[in-house]
Amino acid sequence: MKAWIITIGNEILIGRIVNTNSAWLAKKLTTMGIEVRRMITIPDEEDEIIHTFREAVRHADLIISTGGLGPTFDDKTSEALAKALNRKWVINPDAYEEVKRKFEEANMELTEARLKMAKMPEGSVSLSNSAGTAPGILIETNRKLIVALPGVPREMKAIFEENLEKILAEKAPHKYYAEKSIGVVGIPESAFAPYIDELMKKYPKIYIKSHPRGHETKGPVLEIHITTYADTERDAIKLVEDAANEIIEKIDELGGEVTYQ
Amino acid sequence: MKAWIITIGNEILIGRIVNTNSAWLAKKLTTMGIEVRRMITIPDEEDEIIHTFREAVRHADLIISTGGLGPTFDDKTSEALAKALNRKWVINPDAYEEVKRKFEEANMELTEARLKMAKMPEGSVSLSNSAGTAPGILIETNRKLIVALPGVPREMKAIFEENLEKILAEKAPHKYYAEKSIGVVGIPESAFAPYIDELMKKYPKIYIKSHPRGHETKGPVLEIHITTYADTERDAIKLVEDAANEIIEKIDELGGEVTYQ
Repeated sequence: MKAWIITIGNEILIGRIVNTNSAWLAKKLTTMGIEVRRMITIPDEEDEIIHTFREAVRHADLIISTGGLGPTFDDKTSEALAKALNRKWVINPDAYEEVKRKFEEANMELTEARLKMAKMPEGSVSLSNSAGTAPGILIETNRKLIVALPGVPREMKAIFEENLEKILAEKAPHKYYAEKSIGVVGIPESAFAPYIDELMKKYPKIYIKSHPRGHETKGPVLEIHITTYADTERDAIKLVEDAANEIIEKIDELGGEVTYQ
Repeated sequence: MKAWIITIGNEILIGRIVNTNSAWLAKKLTTMGIEVRRMITIPDEEDEIIHTFREAVRHADLIISTGGLGPTFDDKTSEALAKALNRKWVINPDAYEEVKRKFEEANMELTEARLKMAKMPEGSVSLSNSAGTAPGILIETNRKLIVALPGVPREMKAIFEENLEKILAEKAPHKYYAEKSIGVVGIPESAFAPYIDELMKKYPKIYIKSHPRGHETKGPVLEIHITTYADTERDAIKLVEDAANEIIEKIDELGGEVTYQ
């Protein structure tokens, strides 16, 4: 199951805000056995949103967007998604009840800008938002799952954990993810590189990546990160541990020091 | 001048690392008058890298990638970029001198894995890396500028500030960027939305975006962010200040409170 994560918002593209939403979602999906293949950030422009959703639907099984669901003129995700899928953009009865109730409780009028948060592509499932106003959108089409969540991290996380996670868990492959990090000082990345290559041939299901954290020639510090997917949690952990043990032996052999594991 | 930022690295796609490189680069480019139109994160896979560079060249004037320049098997950016541009992948003399010197100084052999950091698409300019080993890559082709930087933030920033910024500044449009944020409590985003719409029609060069920081109906807190580009710094600041003053008047009128500006 391949996923794309789409971030909609100029504030990311001008560098005002670091995209923590994508990282949070990626971690969630990865541990569920869903492979995130691409993250894209685009501006609050209808054409860009339509184009990107269409491209995503061609390549991914699961598409999750964040941002652009609020009441302002530049919240364009919902309407653009309807256009991308050639669906009508209509009042969703569940979303309408939720939005209406929230504004009634606050003694606020249901203006046109507010009503917009209840409009969704025809056939959407409304995902209730316990942390804010705009509900999320869930669409299933041709075995693809398309989800639009708000950009406010607290609201995005609330909808994901309360309403989306269980739906995804049912559809996700029953794969278990395991990972392990090993800290090393004293071995330059370029000295360890050929060995990683060799080890990945020996363990084809394992992915090993080294991250330089120091200075290659003047004080090498590495983080070696091992990841795998397997059919059972036990298998995943065992695979990672086996590879980790070989790596630790090699670190010893090369005269490096393991600082954590 | 339109830019795309490409991030290459599985560690971002599995949610282990938040993509701060893209935000840092986006802020730099934005203040130079360069518009970042898209950020993309892709895995360490040759096909993905080739495809993404080719797509970027079709849409952007400036493409900056980070990641994948190191000595390990999964550092594939340089070779993939050569393939994307149909250029040979060759030893760059300047990069070779730099890499060779660094390993010599450390009394380390120039192995194949290390030599890889001196290979670049034919015709590249090598951008010296004072903070690490792998130089950056700069290619000018058909009035497009393509830059590949290392993924380690310290190295990426050093190359950008020491060697790339002045090159970009010469090519960037002579536009000045200005921005201002206003904090507001007591006005829901949905109540302010129609006014932002109105104001953006009055000031077509200004972009105004509201970011909800509280709870729409239960305790609204907003950040209103105003941005513009103009031909002089003075004009840019004046435009933003004029719009800010009108916004502050409106906040008063709607019974909100300005918490900062």
